[in-house]
Amino acid sequence: MTRKLRYAMVGGGRDAFIGAVHRHAMALDGQYAFAAGALSSSPDKALASGCDLFLPDARNHGSWQALLTDELKRPKDERVDVVTIVTPNHVHYEVARAFVDAGFHVVCDKPLVHTSAQADDLAARVAKQGTVFGVTYNYTGYPMVRQAREMVRAGAIGAIRKVIVEYHQGWLATQLEGAAQGQVNKQADWRTDPARSGIAGAIGDIGSHAENLMLSVTGLEIDSLCADLTAFVPGRRLDDDGNLLLRFTNGARGVLIASQIEAGCENDIRLRVFGERGMLDWRQEDPNHLIHAPIDGPRMILTRNSPWLSDAAKRACRLPSGHPEAFIEAFANLYVGVAADIRSRRDGGVPASREDADYPRIEDGARGVRFIEKTVESAASAQKWTAMR
Amino acid sequence: MTRKLRYAMVGGGRDAFIGAVHRHAMALDGQYAFAAGALSSSPDKALASGCDLFLPDARNHGSWQALLTDELKRPKDERVDVVTIVTPNHVHYEVARAFVDAGFHVVCDKPLVHTSAQADDLAARVAKQGTVFGVTYNYTGYPMVRQAREMVRAGAIGAIRKVIVEYHQGWLATQLEGAAQGQVNKQADWRTDPARSGIAGAIGDIGSHAENLMLSVTGLEIDSLCADLTAFVPGRRLDDDGNLLLRFTNGARGVLIASQIEAGCENDIRLRVFGERGMLDWRQEDPNHLIHAPIDGPRMILTRNSPWLSDAAKRACRLPSGHPEAFIEAFANLYVGVAADIRSRRDGGVPASREDADYPRIEDGARGVRFIEKTVESAASAQKWTAMR
Amino acid sequence: MTRKLRYAMVGGGRDAFIGAVHRHAMALDGQYAFAAGALSSSPDKALASGCDLFLPDARNHGSWQALLTDELKRPKDERVDVVTIVTPNHVHYEVARAFVDAGFHVVCDKPLVHTSAQADDLAARVAKQGTVFGVTYNYTGYPMVRQAREMVRAGAIGAIRKVIVEYHQGWLATQLEGAAQGQVNKQADWRTDPARSGIAGAIGDIGSHAENLMLSVTGLEIDSLCADLTAFVPGRRLDDDGNLLLRFTNGARGVLIASQIEAGCENDIRLRVFGERGMLDWRQEDPNHLIHAPIDGPRMILTRNSPWLSDAAKRACRLPSGHPEAFIEAFANLYVGVAADIRSRRDGGVPASREDADYPRIEDGARGVRFIEKTVESAASAQKWTAMR
Amino acid sequence: MTRKLRYAMVGGGRDAFIGAVHRHAMALDGQYAFAAGALSSSPDKALASGCDLFLPDARNHGSWQALLTDELKRPKDERVDVVTIVTPNHVHYEVARAFVDAGFHVVCDKPLVHTSAQADDLAARVAKQGTVFGVTYNYTGYPMVRQAREMVRAGAIGAIRKVIVEYHQGWLATQLEGAAQGQVNKQADWRTDPARSGIAGAIGDIGSHAENLMLSVTGLEIDSLCADLTAFVPGRRLDDDGNLLLRFTNGARGVLIASQIEAGCENDIRLRVFGERGMLDWRQEDPNHLIHAPIDGPRMILTRNSPWLSDAAKRACRLPSGHPEAFIEAFANLYVGVAADIRSRRDGGVPASREDADYPRIEDGARGVRFIEKTVESAASAQKWTAMR
Repeated sequence: MTRKLRYAMVGGGRDAFIGAVHRHAMALDGQYAFAAGALSSSPDKALASGCDLFLPDARNHGSWQALLTDELKRPKDERVDVVTIVTPNHVHYEVARAFVDAGFHVVCDKPLVHTSAQADDLAARVAKQGTVFGVTYNYTGYPMVRQAREMVRAGAIGAIRKVIVEYHQGWLATQLEGAAQGQVNKQADWRTDPARSGIAGAIGDIGSHAENLMLSVTGLEIDSLCADLTAFVPGRRLDDDGNLLLRFTNGARGVLIASQIEAGCENDIRLRVFGERGMLDWRQEDPNHLIHAPIDGPRMILTRNSPWLSDAAKRACRLPSGHPEAFIEAFANLYVGVAADIRSRRDGGVPASREDADYPRIEDGARGVRFIEKTVESAASAQKWTAMR
Repeated sequence: MTRKLRYAMVGGGRDAFIGAVHRHAMALDGQYAFAAGALSSSPDKALASGCDLFLPDARNHGSWQALLTDELKRPKDERVDVVTIVTPNHVHYEVARAFVDAGFHVVCDKPLVHTSAQADDLAARVAKQGTVFGVTYNYTGYPMVRQAREMVRAGAIGAIRKVIVEYHQGWLATQLEGAAQGQVNKQADWRTDPARSGIAGAIGDIGSHAENLMLSVTGLEIDSLCADLTAFVPGRRLDDDGNLLLRFTNGARGVLIASQIEAGCENDIRLRVFGERGMLDWRQEDPNHLIHAPIDGPRMILTRNSPWLSDAAKRACRLPSGHPEAFIEAFANLYVGVAADIRSRRDGGVPASREDADYPRIEDGARGVRFIEKTVESAASAQKWTAMR
Repeated sequence: MTRKLRYAMVGGGRDAFIGAVHRHAMALDGQYAFAAGALSSSPDKALASGCDLFLPDARNHGSWQALLTDELKRPKDERVDVVTIVTPNHVHYEVARAFVDAGFHVVCDKPLVHTSAQADDLAARVAKQGTVFGVTYNYTGYPMVRQAREMVRAGAIGAIRKVIVEYHQGWLATQLEGAAQGQVNKQADWRTDPARSGIAGAIGDIGSHAENLMLSVTGLEIDSLCADLTAFVPGRRLDDDGNLLLRFTNGARGVLIASQIEAGCENDIRLRVFGERGMLDWRQEDPNHLIHAPIDGPRMILTRNSPWLSDAAKRACRLPSGHPEAFIEAFANLYVGVAADIRSRRDGGVPASREDADYPRIEDGARGVRFIEKTVESAASAQKWTAMR
Repeated sequence: MTRKLRYAMVGGGRDAFIGAVHRHAMALDGQYAFAAGALSSSPDKALASGCDLFLPDARNHGSWQALLTDELKRPKDERVDVVTIVTPNHVHYEVARAFVDAGFHVVCDKPLVHTSAQADDLAARVAKQGTVFGVTYNYTGYPMVRQAREMVRAGAIGAIRKVIVEYHQGWLATQLEGAAQGQVNKQADWRTDPARSGIAGAIGDIGSHAENLMLSVTGLEIDSLCADLTAFVPGRRLDDDGNLLLRFTNGARGVLIASQIEAGCENDIRLRVFGERGMLDWRQEDPNHLIHAPIDGPRMILTRNSPWLSDAAKRACRLPSGHPEAFIEAFANLYVGVAADIRSRRDGGVPASREDADYPRIEDGARGVRFIEKTVESAASAQKWTAMR
C-alpha cells in the first residue's frame, strides 16, 4: 500500500485531552491521514472541532452514527482504514461494537469497556471479523519498557520473585468535579462519575495502566489480589486511592499502588521487577532510561537507542540516544504497530508478526477490565485474597 | 558533669557489623569514652576484640555477667554510665533486664526483644528505675528525617492521607546462611535463625526500621494491617520478603514493603508521606536531601543544615550544608540525645526535654515488637485485616 | 488561512538524521503538509526518498534547482509556503539565497552558513524580502528553556554574574570518518570535512547550539573570548573538543565547553546561569525540569506545564505536566512559531509579535557564524582575549 | 604500638569550622586521643575551647608556643605523636616549621602556606627530619575518589584526553566580610583577607581542592594554564570566582571552575575525567557513587563498598554498601593513613607503603601553592598560556 492510512476519530474534540494526543501520535510518523471525525457527543462542538483541525466538511460529522453511515456509503477505497475511539469510557462499547461489526479496524482507549461481559463480547466480534483492534495502553510504547520486557524474556534478571508497580498522581487531591469549582472541569467530572467512568476511579483510570505495564513487561499472570480502595475527597463517588497486594501464578509477589490524591505528584508511573538475578526499574517521568541492577555487578543505566539494546527497543526509537523521546513518541509507537498490522492484513492477507506489530490487543483490554472488576470485588471483601479466575 | 560519659558494650566483637557502628557513633562527638566490654558470647573472642580496641584488661570481660559483676564491685563514680547492647536479638532481653535492674542506663539495638510480654516487662522495669533506655532505630537520627517530622507537626503537608514506606535490600537473595557457603556468614546465619532472630526475618530486621521511621515522622497510629510474608530462598526459615497494607486510626492508608531478596538493592529505605497539602519524600541512600512537594507550588529539595530548616533538624547537624553527613552521624545523633538525657538526670535530677534528648525510647521498641507480632499473625490469617489492639 | 501550510524540503533523504526530525516536527501539530522536495544532492536518492515519504511524483525532484523552477511555474496559491533546508552546511547559503530571492519563507538548519559575509548578505536579502527566515537552534524550543529565559527577564535570579554552558558528546571519540571503517559514516564524514562543515568541527556543530542557548536565555552579549580548540582523534581535520572562557559586556564571566570526544556521553547540553539572587540549571537529557536555586530558599524543581510557569513556557507545551515532551516537540515549537509568523504576514500583512512567533531568526544565525569565526581566531592566537567586534 | 596516638591541635577553637571536623575525624576510628591543644590565637578563647572539649588543664595552652615548650619538656613517651594545624592560612608556615623542626609529625590544612618558597623550605625540613607531614586535601579521602584513581591507573578509561573539575559554592555571593553585617562572620572575614588568606580567594580556598582532586585522580601534570579571576562582590579584595583552561603535559586538555559567588550552590565539587575508552564522574554532594561510562557499554553507577571495587577503595570504607559514609569519614581516612605511617615509622622504623598510608603529602601541598601562584600570575597576564614551570 503506497499511501497513508486514513483514520476517523470518535471523540477528542475541543477541551479533550487524550484526543489531541492520539492525533499528535498518528501525525508524527507520516503514516496516517486524518480523514473523518465525529469529535464530540455534542454535534455543534463536534463540527467546530473538526473545523479547527482542517477536516473537510463532508467528513466532519455531528455524531458517530452519522460518521458510520457516511463511511459505509462511500466506495471501499475511499473509506477510512481505522477508527480511533477516544470518548469517555461509557461510550467505548457501543461505538467499538458498531465499527467492528462494520468491518473497520479500531483503536480504542483504555479501560476498554465497563464490564467483562462487554469485553468478552467485543473480543469475540473482533475475532470473527479478523480485524485489528488496538487498545492504547500507551506506556508499553516506550522503548525502554520494551527493552525491559525483552530483558525479562531473555532471562537477564532470572526468575521473577517480586514486582512493584506504582502510579502516583495528585491532580484529584481536591474536589474538582461537579459544582465544586466555579468552572466545570470536564476531565475530573467524567472520570469521577460512575455512570461514565465505570465501577472504579483511580484503579480504572490509572491502575489499569499499571496492571498492563506490569503484566506486559513481566509476562506474569495474577493469581489473586487483595485490594484496599479509598475515596479520600469528601463527596467523591469513586475510589481515588488504591493499594493492592498481588500473588502471581508463578509464586511471585507484588504490590500495586495507584492514587490520584497524592498532592505534589504529576504522572509518576514506575515499575520495578526483581528477579533471582537482578532488578529492572523504569519511571515514566524519566522515560529514556532503564536501570538494570544485576546481582553480580554494578547498577547500569541503559539509555534509549544505545547500541546494546534489544532490537525490539531500537525499533521503537526515532532519534539517536541523548535526544530524548517521550510520551507522544511512545504513543505513536502503538500506532506504528497498528499500521503495520493493518497494512499486512490488507496487502498480504495475514496479520503481521507480534514483532512487527507491537501494540496492546483487545485481549489485553479485556484482561484489564477483569482486573478492575476483581479489584473492586476484593475491596469489598473481608477475605484477604480474591482469585482472578 | 565535666567529663566524658563512660560506656560498656555487650556484643559487637570481631566480625560483628553493628557493634563497630555504635563505637564509631559514640566516638564521633567526643562525649563518650569506651570503658568496658564483653564483646562476644565467646570469651576468647570477647577478650581479643577488646584488646584490638585498646580496652584495658581489667575492664575487658569474657561474658556480660562478668562485666556486670565487675561494674557493681566498683565505686559508683568509676562505673560506666551506660551499657550498649549490640548482640543478636535473642540475647537482648536477658542482658537489658539485668543492667536495667542494676540501675544502669541502657542503649539496645532493635528489634528490642522477641515478644510483647518481654517488651512490656522491660518497659515496666525501666519506668521503675527511672533510667534512660534508648533503642537504636538509627534512621530517625538523620537530620532530614527530623526535618520531615517537624514539617508534619507544623502542618506543612496538611492532614496525612497516605504513607508509603519501603525498605529494599538484596543481600539475602541467595542462601548465605548455614552450610550453603564454604564459609559461615555470621550475619546471615543469625538473622535467618528463628532461635536468635525471633518470629520474623525481613520484617523483624528491617521492617521494624520502616515501621519506626514511618510512625516517628507521621505521628500516626496503625489501626489494622494486612500482611503477605514470603520466604523465597529455598530452605529459608523466616520471611525474606514482606508487603503490607496499613490502615491508620485517623483514616489514612499505607503501604509497607520490606524485602531482603531484591537483588541489586543495597540498603534502600525510603519514606513518602502524602497529606492534603503536599508530599514529603526521603531516601536513606541520599540522606542529605528531603523533597517537599507542596500542592500549590514547585517541588523543593531541602538540604541538610540549610538556613530554612527547623531547629530540631539543625541541632542534628555537625557540618555546613553541602558537606554531607551520613549513617554514622545519624547514629551518633541518637547517642547525643541519650547523653543529654543521662547528664540531665544525673546532674539535674530530671529527664531532659524531648527536644534536648531526641532519641527512640523503650516505648518505641515495644511498639515495634507488637508490630512484628501482628504482622506475623496477619500473614497467617485468611482475614484481610488484623487489628493492632 | 484555513488550510495547512505547505512545505518543501531540501536535503534530508535516506540516511540523513536531521531531515527526519524536521518532518516529525512539522507533522506533529497538523499545521504543515509535506508538499514537495529535493531530498538529496544525488538525484536518484532524492527521488527514492520522496517516494518513501508518499511525496507525489510531480513535486518530487532530483535537485533543489528543479524544485525551485517547478515551484515558480505553479500558480501562487499552489506553491509551497516555506522551504526547509536540511543539507550539510556548505549548501545552505546557495539554496537559502535562491529561495529567499524567489520570495519563499525559509527555515534553515544551523550553523547558518560558512562565513559572516555570507550571513550578512543573506540577512540583508531577507530584510529586503520581508519574509520569514527561521534557524533551527532547536534547544530554545524546549518549554523549560523558555521558562528560564522568562525568569531571567523577570529578574528571578538578579543580575547575571556567571554562565556555564556545556555540550558533551562522545560519538566522535574514535575515527568514524573516511576510510577508517569498512562502511562510510555519512554523518561523521561531512561533519569533520572542512569543505562541507566549515572552519570548525565541534564548535560549529554543537558549540553553536551552546552559544545560542546561552545567549537566548541570558540576553547577554559576548564581549571577548578565549578559546582552546583541539583535534584529538588522529587524522581529524577539524576540532573535536573546544573549551572557552567568556567575558560578557555586562561584566559577567562564562565558560563554554563543547566536545565530541567525551566517550560515554550522548547529547548532554546543559546551561547554568548564576545571578546575584540565585541560579538556574537546565539539562537537555532531562528536559522537562528546570532547577531554580534562589539565594534565600530551597532549591526548586520546576516542571514543564506546571501551573506556576510563565505564559511563554506554557504556550510551548502540548501535554499536562508529568507527561514528558522531548526533542521532537521542542523542535516542533520552532515550527509553531514560524507558522504563526507566516500566517500573520500572509493573512494580516504584518509580522507576528515575538511572543506569538517564538523562534530563532536569521540574526541569531548570523551571530552564531561570527561566534564560530571568533572562536577559531582566538584558538590560533597567543593573546588571551579576542574581542567579538 | 598498642595504644592510641596522642594528638595536639593548634587552632580550631570555638566558632571555627574545620577544627571540629578534624576532631570528629580523628575520634571516629578510635585511633587517636586528643591530648593537648592551643586552640586559638586568643589565649582566653584557646583555654575556654579546650575546657569545652575535656582537655586536661595541664595540656590546654593559650598559644602554640606554650604548647611546643610544654611538649618538649615532657618525657618522650608522654609527648603527643602528631600536631594538627587548623589555623587560618597565614599561621601555617610558622607553626608547621616549628613543630617539624622539633621532630613532631604534623598534619596541616590546605592551602599549605602562602608562597612556593615557604612550601619548598618546609618540604626540605620535613625531608631532613624524616617525619610524617599530611596535608588535608580531604576530598581524596572519599572511597569513590580512590576508586576513580585506581580505575584510571588500571586503564579503565584509557589515555586521558580531557578533565573537567568544578567547585561551586555560593556562600560568598554577598558581602559577609568586614563591617557589612552587624555581626562579624569570622570565616568570611579571614578567607577574603589577603593578609590571612594569601594572594588568592576562591582559587586558594577551594580551587586548590579542585586542583588536588584532579591531579590525584588522573596522575596528570599541568603544563600551562590560562586563568580568568574575578572579584564580583563590591569591596572584595580577593577573587571570588575563577575559571581556567588547562593543558597537561600528556596533551590532555582541562577546565577548572572554582567559585564562591554561585548563589544557590552549597559545596558542589565534581570531577569528570574523559579518556579514550570512557568517562568517570564523581560529585561530592553524592559521594557514595561514582559513574563510569565506558565507550562500549552502558553507564554504570559504582557504589561505595560494593564487591567489585578496588582494594584501595574498599579499605577506605567502614560500612556495607547502601549505608552511606560522607565528609567526616572521608576526612578520617586521611588520618587513618597518617596513623599507619606514624606507627610504621615508630614501630618499624620505615615509612608505610603508599597503599597502607594513603594520604596527601607535603609535596601535594607544595604543588598546590605553586598552582595558586601561577593562576594569579596568569590572571594578570595578557598572554593566553602561563607555564607551570
